[in-house]
Amino acid sequence: MDSGKDFGIREGEKAVDLPSKADAALYFIGRIYTPWNERKDCPKNARESEAVCVVEVDPRWHEALKDVETCTHLVLLYWMDKSPRNLVLQVPGHYGVQHGTFALRSPARPNPVAMSVVKLLRMDGNRLSVVGLDCLDGTPLLDIKPYFASTDSVPDAVVGWHKND
Amino acid sequence: MDSGKDFGIREGEKAVDLPSKADAALYFIGRIYTPWNERKDCPKNARESEAVCVVEVDPRWHEALKDVETCTHLVLLYWMDKSPRNLVLQVPGHYGVQHGTFALRSPARPNPVAMSVVKLLRMDGNRLSVVGLDCLDGTPLLDIKPYFASTDSVPDAVVGWHKND
Repeated sequence: MDSGKDFGIREGEKAVDLPSKADAALYFIGRIYTPWNERKDCPKNARESEAVCVVEVDPRWHEALKDVETCTHLVLLYWMDKSPRNLVLQVPGHYGVQHGTFALRSPARPNPVAMSVVKLLRMDGNRLSVVGLDCLDGTPLLDIKPYFASTDSVPDAVVGWHKND
Repeated sequence: MDSGKDFGIREGEKAVDLPSKADAALYFIGRIYTPWNERKDCPKNARESEAVCVVEVDPRWHEALKDVETCTHLVLLYWMDKSPRNLVLQVPGHYGVQHGTFALRSPARPNPVAMSVVKLLRMDGNRLSVVGLDCLDGTPLLDIKPYFASTDSVPDAVVGWHKND
């Protein structure tokens, strides 16, 4: 946790005590390579950038990529390891309005697991070239899933607070 | 891990050694209550069921739900704690064809974090009634995110291997 550097608590924000122990453990299965080395340089959201990023899967899991190349889009889960985990209310800088953590896509959340839908450009061995990420260079990868439009796509979904901002 | 009971290795499946240590830790932030008590009773995928499920968030995180009720759809992340984590190649029973773990939505994966897009029916305090889940009753909750159609919806995405089956 690095709450002092990039994530000082703003007026209107609220933190809680974290649980005294963890409940489950994660393995980093690879790394994500992006053009962004500091949080301030990252796109505000993934649709703002057409940058090609590279997802590199550790050799241990290489065979698990079989048939991934047949997918046009993937769900990536990754670990926002620079984020504080104790905020329940946040005031995002670019909106300036208080919202609950679970109404935001902020990396600051109890379990800083980010989810992005990416377009797969190509797969070379254990390296995937994708478009649609906004995370820091070197971000730890947690999972790759096929994106099924039948269950994952809801074109008419609305985030009410965002629409009204 | 409970690889013996529900997930015996089938012909065509392959397991690898897991890493010797974990890289990050998760907190369970609540529980998901569904009508399904055994894996065989769960819908094959979430669009098969209109069952209303209840997501209960622990009191510690209650305030983080502010404004979630303005969302029509949410992304839920939850922990498939009954799944083996060492399979790289799998032969799903209902397809009978071998695929890599990262080309499947199977709960058996290095980090068994499931992602489902759900429709929010209502929120009463720290309880959310949702449609679109297929997990076991009592499944641990990891995260709730607002679903943004602008970044999360790709209606024309294709999973090539699935289309051809």
